[in-house]
Amino acid sequence: MIIVMKPGAKESSIRQILNIIQSNQLEAHLSNGKEVTIIGVVGDKTVLCDKNLELFEDVEKIVEVTESYKLANKKFHPLPSIVKVGNTSIGGEEFVIMSGPCAVESEDQVMETAKAIKASGAQILRGGAYKPRTSPYSFQGLEEDGLKLMKEAREETGLAIVCEVTSLEAIEAASKYVDMLQIGARNMQNFYLLKEAGKTGLPVLLKRGLSATIEEWLNAAEYVMAEGNPNVVLCERGIRTFENSTRNTLDISAVPVIKEKSHLPIIVDPSHATGVRGYVAPLSKAAIACGADGLMIETHPNPTKALSDGPQSLTFKQFDDLCYELRPFIQLMNKRF
Amino acid sequence: MIIVMKPGAKESSIRQILNIIQSNQLEAHLSNGKEVTIIGVVGDKTVLCDKNLELFEDVEKIVEVTESYKLANKKFHPLPSIVKVGNTSIGGEEFVIMSGPCAVESEDQVMETAKAIKASGAQILRGGAYKPRTSPYSFQGLEEDGLKLMKEAREETGLAIVCEVTSLEAIEAASKYVDMLQIGARNMQNFYLLKEAGKTGLPVLLKRGLSATIEEWLNAAEYVMAEGNPNVVLCERGIRTFENSTRNTLDISAVPVIKEKSHLPIIVDPSHATGVRGYVAPLSKAAIACGADGLMIETHPNPTKALSDGPQSLTFKQFDDLCYELRPFIQLMNKRF
Amino acid sequence: MIIVMKPGAKESSIRQILNIIQSNQLEAHLSNGKEVTIIGVVGDKTVLCDKNLELFEDVEKIVEVTESYKLANKKFHPLPSIVKVGNTSIGGEEFVIMSGPCAVESEDQVMETAKAIKASGAQILRGGAYKPRTSPYSFQGLEEDGLKLMKEAREETGLAIVCEVTSLEAIEAASKYVDMLQIGARNMQNFYLLKEAGKTGLPVLLKRGLSATIEEWLNAAEYVMAEGNPNVVLCERGIRTFENSTRNTLDISAVPVIKEKSHLPIIVDPSHATGVRGYVAPLSKAAIACGADGLMIETHPNPTKALSDGPQSLTFKQFDDLCYELRPFIQLMNKRF
Amino acid sequence: MIIVMKPGAKESSIRQILNIIQSNQLEAHLSNGKEVTIIGVVGDKTVLCDKNLELFEDVEKIVEVTESYKLANKKFHPLPSIVKVGNTSIGGEEFVIMSGPCAVESEDQVMETAKAIKASGAQILRGGAYKPRTSPYSFQGLEEDGLKLMKEAREETGLAIVCEVTSLEAIEAASKYVDMLQIGARNMQNFYLLKEAGKTGLPVLLKRGLSATIEEWLNAAEYVMAEGNPNVVLCERGIRTFENSTRNTLDISAVPVIKEKSHLPIIVDPSHATGVRGYVAPLSKAAIACGADGLMIETHPNPTKALSDGPQSLTFKQFDDLCYELRPFIQLMNKRF
Repeated sequence: MIIVMKPGAKESSIRQILNIIQSNQLEAHLSNGKEVTIIGVVGDKTVLCDKNLELFEDVEKIVEVTESYKLANKKFHPLPSIVKVGNTSIGGEEFVIMSGPCAVESEDQVMETAKAIKASGAQILRGGAYKPRTSPYSFQGLEEDGLKLMKEAREETGLAIVCEVTSLEAIEAASKYVDMLQIGARNMQNFYLLKEAGKTGLPVLLKRGLSATIEEWLNAAEYVMAEGNPNVVLCERGIRTFENSTRNTLDISAVPVIKEKSHLPIIVDPSHATGVRGYVAPLSKAAIACGADGLMIETHPNPTKALSDGPQSLTFKQFDDLCYELRPFIQLMNKRF
Repeated sequence: MIIVMKPGAKESSIRQILNIIQSNQLEAHLSNGKEVTIIGVVGDKTVLCDKNLELFEDVEKIVEVTESYKLANKKFHPLPSIVKVGNTSIGGEEFVIMSGPCAVESEDQVMETAKAIKASGAQILRGGAYKPRTSPYSFQGLEEDGLKLMKEAREETGLAIVCEVTSLEAIEAASKYVDMLQIGARNMQNFYLLKEAGKTGLPVLLKRGLSATIEEWLNAAEYVMAEGNPNVVLCERGIRTFENSTRNTLDISAVPVIKEKSHLPIIVDPSHATGVRGYVAPLSKAAIACGADGLMIETHPNPTKALSDGPQSLTFKQFDDLCYELRPFIQLMNKRF
Repeated sequence: MIIVMKPGAKESSIRQILNIIQSNQLEAHLSNGKEVTIIGVVGDKTVLCDKNLELFEDVEKIVEVTESYKLANKKFHPLPSIVKVGNTSIGGEEFVIMSGPCAVESEDQVMETAKAIKASGAQILRGGAYKPRTSPYSFQGLEEDGLKLMKEAREETGLAIVCEVTSLEAIEAASKYVDMLQIGARNMQNFYLLKEAGKTGLPVLLKRGLSATIEEWLNAAEYVMAEGNPNVVLCERGIRTFENSTRNTLDISAVPVIKEKSHLPIIVDPSHATGVRGYVAPLSKAAIACGADGLMIETHPNPTKALSDGPQSLTFKQFDDLCYELRPFIQLMNKRF
Repeated sequence: MIIVMKPGAKESSIRQILNIIQSNQLEAHLSNGKEVTIIGVVGDKTVLCDKNLELFEDVEKIVEVTESYKLANKKFHPLPSIVKVGNTSIGGEEFVIMSGPCAVESEDQVMETAKAIKASGAQILRGGAYKPRTSPYSFQGLEEDGLKLMKEAREETGLAIVCEVTSLEAIEAASKYVDMLQIGARNMQNFYLLKEAGKTGLPVLLKRGLSATIEEWLNAAEYVMAEGNPNVVLCERGIRTFENSTRNTLDISAVPVIKEKSHLPIIVDPSHATGVRGYVAPLSKAAIACGADGLMIETHPNPTKALSDGPQSLTFKQFDDLCYELRPFIQLMNKRF
């Protein structure tokens, strides 16, 4: 932590800050510049959390030097984490594709989808049973009945399954059926939900919030991990900007940034990032090429009839073609699929 | 709803769309342009929600013409709503100031604050008992014990009280103690929480999400109202942009925009919007001058020792001076304080 | 300047940095933390501008502590600047309203407007002769003929006049006719244009770029001032965000932020910020209440026929009513109008 | 163009709009809904540009259906354009890499760089002679002397050269020396400069503005093309968002979006997009994989001594390794390098 004093800060103001630092058993290092004085603070800064040093006289600003997340931080865990989900693993040599409909609608829909995506090579079936929708008048999901259909599909195909959870109630229900819990973008800072998901010990797929910085995202992962659950997989799904030719702006740089700052696996969801079916294939290739550990891609037996997010869903044929096209890129990155 | 066809759309594609519209008992109005053909759809479009018309051949895009929120929409409720909270009312002639600490810390802190802000004219005491914090290692709130302290302060001073809720558990606890529930920015699209808050029938203070559009914000209000609870007050508290001299960017235009699109009251929180104490006074005046129904301002007996958000909190003296300075602006807007 | 070293930085890496600093006649202050080492640099850092210290081994990041703008910086010029334009002055006790059409179209239009706004109390006539338009097929302005019409209006009414310039050619022409040059948002970082405007010595109205930070804006002002021209007035006109119910998002906080960081006057343009006529009045009041030195408001004899930006223009009657409504707010801020 | 009327619009208001449309020889198609009435307008809408229909009574909003850019629009020019620059071509089967220093500093620097990048396979040398810098106190470029050094390097190596221009003066000088003019992000809406660049007939590399939408970017290209110069290459270089772990946010989706909306070639600049050397390689691969026609990558003989943008520059060894790594990705996309 660095404390920057205002130009012309009084000796007494500087001494007051030094006293607070030293009386909390921290070391202070003073740099007296011609224009400004800065004070470096060395030691465990959490003891200063209730001191609000920026409010003291002649203090201009406080600059944090270390990240607030520890468990998710690569500095303290340099080796990449591998998260086991059903029979597959994310973050290692295997490239993992999750696919399925935005919303679970019927037994036929789920079962057909599971078989089709399995045939194309996908390892995980996704399907929403609790749907966070912008309008209360949109379809809200089949809830526990949807989870049961997902479980049937898993028994039939051997695919692992991942479902979004939006409440403690949903976590409790989902824990009985799924291999991985998904925390959606709108709940990325629903800290209560993060803690409850952490407590289950199940792998957690943590989507980035629409306007979350990477630092906040890693702090959200920290909430899950601080409950003793290291099984977090991050999912970049686009951030909100002024650009409107795509639904969101896929922040592809998040992949190398996460690889530098954290040991957690990261996958990319081009379907939600763009909202446009035609952009899914090129962005999937981009995600692979810059080092993502997997993809989440929406598919539907009949996108024109999907109850949610149809316009961005691929047909089974399109998905199969895409998997075929992606294989050489995956090989080039030395991953298996 | 307007369907814009691609240039050179085939007759058969156009006929297919017309068939779908008409077979759903809607009217279609065709405009054949030299460059493009557009189809206006008249009637209750909710029957088309699972049709995904943008996926049909030769369709370029769908343009929505009507808003998806109804209960919050001024078009259907032209008169402004007035929401009663304790002995005060928001949205009418009274200008309402809510104040208090970001986090409830102790009995002394809450009681002192309640008395001080009451003396300055504030009508509602705010104080967080459940704190959503970016890092799991920051202070998380006193929970139900905090609510009890708030209730004591209310009994002592007669002020109404508002507390943030972050889970069903918190809603259940808060319902026993508070006059108004607050849904924070990070939970604005926690639809589960919105519904549960709606069910209590208590007034709900709904903060705008960090990257929520005004349309999404009104749809979030719709979630509460659709549970039969019309008592929603909106709170603009800054949105996320690239500008970093303030913590967020106060979207002051949200005040007149909401007044045009909705009948719900709107207040402004300059403390969270800027994160800087020195900007609270000028932005409070701006909020009044452009028609806000109230303000939420952070105060603390000793900001330098606040466990949360100290840098943006006012001392009681500063708050008292501010209320004094605000009065003539409030009068000019023909409101009482 | 503070240099933050990576955790576990080697002694030799630290020594290398210290050598560079000291061999450039600067002082280095070392703080050895358990986790990180930081080095404070004291002295004139411009000598390091070609050293790129962030590329050296074990360097994590460089944190700048002082602002790069000097002439526009309040730290070195604590008293507010007052900029004289024609017979009026901006930044002092007078509250200045600039008004007129987005684009100069005809003699009648300009003359009628000048007389009308003068009658309402405005001190400066604005009117665009060189129009930067998104599409090359939109009306591009009357150029020098437009400037002549503006000058006629000035001779007739005594109003000062301000016109946007978009090229050296336009600056040369405008210098013959106008009292103040305007640099538009799209040219805020057209540094060549800023320097040329600076050289004229004429007052410069510098609009904030659509995605410019306040720091960049003050650096743009610095370009003008570095040419020996201290007569810069800043104009906040909205920044680009995801919100789309207004054309841009008026960053009202820019007013108090500029007042804290700079001595330059700042005015607000609610017409361009929102693009909606109905929001001009409430935002004008907000701007006054938070301390702006003036306003720029679009008016047109017949907005439905304006060649540019009609939807945000006020009629003369609307403008006159607005000026009447604004007076008590201006008085409350102890300014004259 | 579609005109959406307010709910309950009066018959007379609707008739007024219909009259205006018809008296301008356009066709009007009326759709009377229960909630709203919409009017489709068919014909050449430019005749309405001075009508400002949104200001008429009972008009709610105007929805544009067709794009304002024509020459850059794929709808009217379905085949991809190929732009010849020196001996290379952008937009066809060849994958083009431009490389070199942010700023031209000396003969040795430019010549060394030219030879090194040529040896690695790059086809175009970049180097800035006119530098738009945020602060007036940063290095501003060698101007015409820099252009001469670039030309020498071209004569020595046969590489084509591209230089940024920031004024008419710079365009006039550059036209004597370079193969391609670059319009930088900060000047993307400097329409005067765009027109002047268009008039030269030279290929123009048009960088996307920091907060420009794709629609505005294509309209900027239209300015160049409307001067009779079809040789425009677009360059995505990151947009401004709230994320701060990278300097800007590379909008990788812009590549497939441009490929859908326009026939112009598009390249990607990962150096400026991220500002971090370590992210250049993964993002280069991503750009290739999603269909970009080329890359612009900063290199410098000694990045630690670069006068501009050192931290994002690669050494020659790093650049050579990168080109080697990129080849298989380029092959997979069926391009040559």
